[in-house]
Amino acid sequence: MRCVLAPDSFKGSLAAAEVAAAIGRGLQRVLPDIALDICPMADGGEGTLLALASAGCGQLRTATVHDAEGRLRPVQWLQGAELAVLEVAQVVGLPDVGASLLAERHSGGVGELLRQMLDAGCRRIAVALGGSSTNDGGAGLLAALGGRWLAADGSQLPPLPASWPPAVYFDESGLDPRLAGVQLEVWSDVGNPLCGPQGASAVFGPQKGLLAQDLPRFDAALQSLACALLRQKPGLPPQVAGGGAAGGMGFALQWLGARQQSGAAALAAANGLAARIATADWVITGEGRSDSQTLHGKAPALVAQRAREHGVAVSLLSGAVEGSAALSEAFDGCFSLCPGPASLADAMQQAAPWLEQAAEQMLRLRLAARRQAC
Amino acid sequence: MRCVLAPDSFKGSLAAAEVAAAIGRGLQRVLPDIALDICPMADGGEGTLLALASAGCGQLRTATVHDAEGRLRPVQWLQGAELAVLEVAQVVGLPDVGASLLAERHSGGVGELLRQMLDAGCRRIAVALGGSSTNDGGAGLLAALGGRWLAADGSQLPPLPASWPPAVYFDESGLDPRLAGVQLEVWSDVGNPLCGPQGASAVFGPQKGLLAQDLPRFDAALQSLACALLRQKPGLPPQVAGGGAAGGMGFALQWLGARQQSGAAALAAANGLAARIATADWVITGEGRSDSQTLHGKAPALVAQRAREHGVAVSLLSGAVEGSAALSEAFDGCFSLCPGPASLADAMQQAAPWLEQAAEQMLRLRLAARRQAC
Repeated sequence: MRCVLAPDSFKGSLAAAEVAAAIGRGLQRVLPDIALDICPMADGGEGTLLALASAGCGQLRTATVHDAEGRLRPVQWLQGAELAVLEVAQVVGLPDVGASLLAERHSGGVGELLRQMLDAGCRRIAVALGGSSTNDGGAGLLAALGGRWLAADGSQLPPLPASWPPAVYFDESGLDPRLAGVQLEVWSDVGNPLCGPQGASAVFGPQKGLLAQDLPRFDAALQSLACALLRQKPGLPPQVAGGGAAGGMGFALQWLGARQQSGAAALAAANGLAARIATADWVITGEGRSDSQTLHGKAPALVAQRAREHGVAVSLLSGAVEGSAALSEAFDGCFSLCPGPASLADAMQQAAPWLEQAAEQMLRLRLAARRQAC
Repeated sequence: MRCVLAPDSFKGSLAAAEVAAAIGRGLQRVLPDIALDICPMADGGEGTLLALASAGCGQLRTATVHDAEGRLRPVQWLQGAELAVLEVAQVVGLPDVGASLLAERHSGGVGELLRQMLDAGCRRIAVALGGSSTNDGGAGLLAALGGRWLAADGSQLPPLPASWPPAVYFDESGLDPRLAGVQLEVWSDVGNPLCGPQGASAVFGPQKGLLAQDLPRFDAALQSLACALLRQKPGLPPQVAGGGAAGGMGFALQWLGARQQSGAAALAAANGLAARIATADWVITGEGRSDSQTLHGKAPALVAQRAREHGVAVSLLSGAVEGSAALSEAFDGCFSLCPGPASLADAMQQAAPWLEQAAEQMLRLRLAARRQAC
């Protein structure tokens, strides 16, 4: 039996490769010589680099850049043979934020890291969005790449849109010329536009600390930013899908010419998921928590789709499963690692042994069915 | 596909028949025309009557007898074509106990119920032990059946051994003469003897409210009771296995000639489990909580054994599973109904929908394996 183990990470508990390893150990308890193909997944957010590195898609490199609060910090990026990947959450990750206000944080470090990757000779760069603490519309990113934000009187502005005057201009003359020769990608599953009721500030602002009374000011600031950019180089629709990803970095990157892709699909393309599934008997995927959102671009949904395309059975093993008919239809069995009533803290702490145990039970059930069918 | 659903009850949450029904609904969500054989189980304790009645093994009757604290209360018993069953937990159940002390409670109501069953013409009576609140060595039971407990001076004693003088006698002359013509069975999985460190008082006393300092007195009292009974009619070893069941009622009933049987096995014999499993494709069993004790005479272990004997796949679906290698070996997959972190209270309250969901997932996994094998 050949089994592809392609889970996402269990956020706050186990990396994707650790999840796959635990599932693998459980399967081996029943079939010691089962052929396991460890294929860690991610959906373009936190854990993307690690999943790619575990899948042998490149080497992790370290760079030192400023985080969203202006502290220098070492971050990782991935250098593959053809593709280099930058994970926004590594640079301006929401969990790293201290006491700063949202209006004070910007994405400059992401631009610094992009320049260092250009220095390293990267010609195709994917920016994995997701998990950012900023809402600057990529103002910091573009400034770090050499652009300048200007007031009507020509004075230079800091890359903090919430502090800007109503009229603002962008001087792109200083943008790193190497950007022109680089193929940029944005990995994200966020389809929200930059501004408006479905925009970055309205939808993702609150979880980053944006207060309701400040929303109009933040939203208007990003509107100004979009106007300034489109005045320089039109073509991009102001409300382009995905512009609202990562606090508006999605818009800035698309303005730079980046093509947006589903994170999970891009990762699957990078690690050769489809070909690996094609020769498997069974695929197991999973994530920290599965619910109706899972089917909207999350890694397990992509894995299920690839498995269905190849007629291979695919089961879900997650930390928690909020069941629905759609979720049940998408998988050949959706299971939780919990062996009984347990607190979230326990489930996160015991995730590895419980995954092992659950995977063993799933395989035992499967083997009995195969035995009887033959 | 033909599936036998043979769970025990989930104590405090669902009766065995309700568990089976919920599992069945889950399976039908995937295969609307699956053939379901609802076969509720029990292990001789609480829920035995209901499981038998649900399986069509007889009619539930109501009688009024005294409970362990002397209150009259309606209780049920089962009248089958050949076999009548009395459940000790119905009469002197531990959950029904109020403020009384253990020394004040006795099993007289069980004897009263036995007499009413004799009145109804029952010729084969099984007493399902388990779940009792008494530790009277069956003193009350025997008194209610017409026996008399006497002090050395011939004065009559109440059926409360803990209050007895050191020397005590039993007058069996008044015992209901119909007992001689009745086939008595004890259904129990307790192998403990009446007295000593593994006896009724030492092992089951504490959960009934026995304090450590009172243990010697209670144990000695049951020793006196055994001596008095064996002086009248020897033959039974004082330390006979199962004598310690139901606070020593096991001893009194065996002294009356009852044959002890595994509760689960007796129930399986009564509901024809083996024959029903023989023609099935899959058996699902379960209980509130499965652990290493499960394999020692609990209903799911008996179900698994019968399934193995017929080469039929058997899976476990319980409220909680404390996994072990032995448990995993015994079943084709052990699963919990919990779809993620949850409190015990939630799991008990949501047991039915969660069972439905879990059973659906198990069947989906199973069907995928069969599809692939064909």
